[in-house]
Amino acid sequence: MSDVKIVSLESKDVRFPTSLGAHGSDAMHKDPDYSCAYVILKTENGLEGNGLTFTCGRGTEIVVTAINTLSTIVVGKLAGEIFNDFGNFWRSLTSETQIRWLGPEKGVMHLATAAIINALWDLWGKIEKKPVWRLLADLTPEQLVSVIDFRYISDVITKEEAIEILRQSQTGKEQRIQTLLTGGYPAYTTQVGWLGYTEETVTRLCHEYLALGYTHFKVKVGQNIEDDIRRLRTVRKIVGQDNIVSIDANQVWDVNQAIEWVKRLAEFKLLWIEEPTSPDDVLGHLAISNALKPLGIGVATGEMCCNRVLFKQFLQSNAIQYCQIDSARIGGVNEILSVYLMAKKLGIKVCPHAGGVGLCEMVQHLQMWDYVALSGDKEGRWVEYVDQQHEHFVNPVVIKNAHYQAPLVINVHK
Amino acid sequence: MSDVKIVSLESKDVRFPTSLGAHGSDAMHKDPDYSCAYVILKTENGLEGNGLTFTCGRGTEIVVTAINTLSTIVVGKLAGEIFNDFGNFWRSLTSETQIRWLGPEKGVMHLATAAIINALWDLWGKIEKKPVWRLLADLTPEQLVSVIDFRYISDVITKEEAIEILRQSQTGKEQRIQTLLTGGYPAYTTQVGWLGYTEETVTRLCHEYLALGYTHFKVKVGQNIEDDIRRLRTVRKIVGQDNIVSIDANQVWDVNQAIEWVKRLAEFKLLWIEEPTSPDDVLGHLAISNALKPLGIGVATGEMCCNRVLFKQFLQSNAIQYCQIDSARIGGVNEILSVYLMAKKLGIKVCPHAGGVGLCEMVQHLQMWDYVALSGDKEGRWVEYVDQQHEHFVNPVVIKNAHYQAPLVINVHK
Repeated sequence: MSDVKIVSLESKDVRFPTSLGAHGSDAMHKDPDYSCAYVILKTENGLEGNGLTFTCGRGTEIVVTAINTLSTIVVGKLAGEIFNDFGNFWRSLTSETQIRWLGPEKGVMHLATAAIINALWDLWGKIEKKPVWRLLADLTPEQLVSVIDFRYISDVITKEEAIEILRQSQTGKEQRIQTLLTGGYPAYTTQVGWLGYTEETVTRLCHEYLALGYTHFKVKVGQNIEDDIRRLRTVRKIVGQDNIVSIDANQVWDVNQAIEWVKRLAEFKLLWIEEPTSPDDVLGHLAISNALKPLGIGVATGEMCCNRVLFKQFLQSNAIQYCQIDSARIGGVNEILSVYLMAKKLGIKVCPHAGGVGLCEMVQHLQMWDYVALSGDKEGRWVEYVDQQHEHFVNPVVIKNAHYQAPLVINVHK
Repeated sequence: MSDVKIVSLESKDVRFPTSLGAHGSDAMHKDPDYSCAYVILKTENGLEGNGLTFTCGRGTEIVVTAINTLSTIVVGKLAGEIFNDFGNFWRSLTSETQIRWLGPEKGVMHLATAAIINALWDLWGKIEKKPVWRLLADLTPEQLVSVIDFRYISDVITKEEAIEILRQSQTGKEQRIQTLLTGGYPAYTTQVGWLGYTEETVTRLCHEYLALGYTHFKVKVGQNIEDDIRRLRTVRKIVGQDNIVSIDANQVWDVNQAIEWVKRLAEFKLLWIEEPTSPDDVLGHLAISNALKPLGIGVATGEMCCNRVLFKQFLQSNAIQYCQIDSARIGGVNEILSVYLMAKKLGIKVCPHAGGVGLCEMVQHLQMWDYVALSGDKEGRWVEYVDQQHEHFVNPVVIKNAHYQAPLVINVHK
């Protein structure tokens, strides 16, 4: 492996006109065109690593420019040089001495980093002939932590603690791999409740997804309280009292407004309120969480949480009860592993965000690794599922009975 | 004013090879090439608005791409349309429904926003024939708060509270304008202590800046404790016990490391430790601040604080004692005003970051406005000063006796 050189990095600006059908619409993103900045790494022996970061249309060219700027750090390197010292390579991307000013470790630069890092993991999987979840699960605790940059999180978790946690999680791993291969991993659906959908569409989709075996339904809220009440009444009526309903405000509220609004929706028995306010507001989420605890409603966020330092604070302060990592918002697999480790240590459930172009395809690997090799538990956890843009992938996600099926096929492009 | 149309927006990638002399070098940025993404707005009647955001060299092209993407929101608008509803215009830039995903309100997108917004304020000043500090000081409290987006900060300050605070600060304004015009605003220097400088250079510069009237000296630290002790001993010996010394680690430490390291430097009687750790770590700064309080050392940060939501948390939790706003990191003048208002309400001193290309030229206006129209106080506050790249400006800062002199000249390009 160590003598395979990466000879090129190509980035593409790929857009789909989803705004035409209001698919993906919510209180903050009224007209998203589901898109992505796509990375293709090529090695001298003809292997390809594919990665991407999700975008909402306009501005994708900025992320592509950022990927091109960072590509000079990747191209010309030997694959082994990167994978044998992946933590340090990751830092060389995120802390390049001049480029770091543009983040640090957030926004456009971190989206670009995610696309490149995810392409590298795809390449590593192809070299090892394993899907990424299995590649991760087969790494020793020492190998796994060596890909993580512990800078800024050592006050909550050290490398040594992480190794110890991973060692303890080895027990029962083979059994869990079998369980996963047989039954898959639970999904919840956001498809029934996009804000731009009509009442008729919501009703039809609720029936459809119930029939498909889903037990957890998420509804977009936050534009109009009366409308929210009406839609939640419809959803609750169809899915019944035994299934789970969550809501998602996509950051439209201020802190106090969030508390008041959600209190008025509490009668619908909600598992979580997702993104009640700014994704940067740890103390705000803590205030909301404290106010909603007596009502049995948890707080969830993470899809726009900009890096492991923000996640650290959300987790250490109990500001959230559901940690929604995204596969392409923070710096790719390496950084996301550090979030899983902190969540495990602090006892917070990870329920990944997905739905955007390629996000389901990528994030399933991480959550499956978590089940097999870290948390050892699927109870009360789900990966988000949205049925959009899967047809563009060589290996799209496979969902059976509302469960993600573990990816097995490795396509090695030659 | 209202019928002047903005007909073009040009953005330039401007770089200076400052890394050749280690100017600006610190523990995190070992070889910065002081640079900027520069914006030139033009109106149909020949007026120009100039703004910029500072960068460290590589990657400036990404910010330029982002500025070009956002330019479609500005070009074609009437100046009055923007300035009469500036808060909403600001939100239309930072929350454009598709582009917002790339931030939100942070990193590359916010640097680009800052450059454009600062150019608009420059244009407004030229239309009104006033330097920006005076334009700001002459706005009524109602006009001033109308430029601010209070989204996500209303739990700490509301629009109504902000108006009330500004009204109370009107008392003595004319007197303070006279004081400012006579004596200027205090500066501190970072010039004596760049990490890449030799002992001889540090010694020479300490003597030079003492002779120029400076009373507050900042030294870069964090690479090597023995070296830090040696350099601080040199600086303290030359500037004496009555002058002020602060230190700056540029984010190199983890939380516990910061506490241990700074404790070992406490003997040098330090006013503040700046950027001890990640600029995103509110709870980390709070832990550091609590640990250093018994030693009389304050905590400062802000030059890389990504938006008003992070600033809100730093201020509300008492994680910092010195709030170091930067003129081009968050979304330009409009958002910075909200930080000043929160700092005033919560009793935290603002001591702006400056030194990068154009940052001194821009930020002096904000701090002068604060003195004249908000805090009413200069005691124990300084604007950072670094003597670099001023020669490239038509109206460079003027420093006399270690004080920024209030800008008076308005160059109206025709």
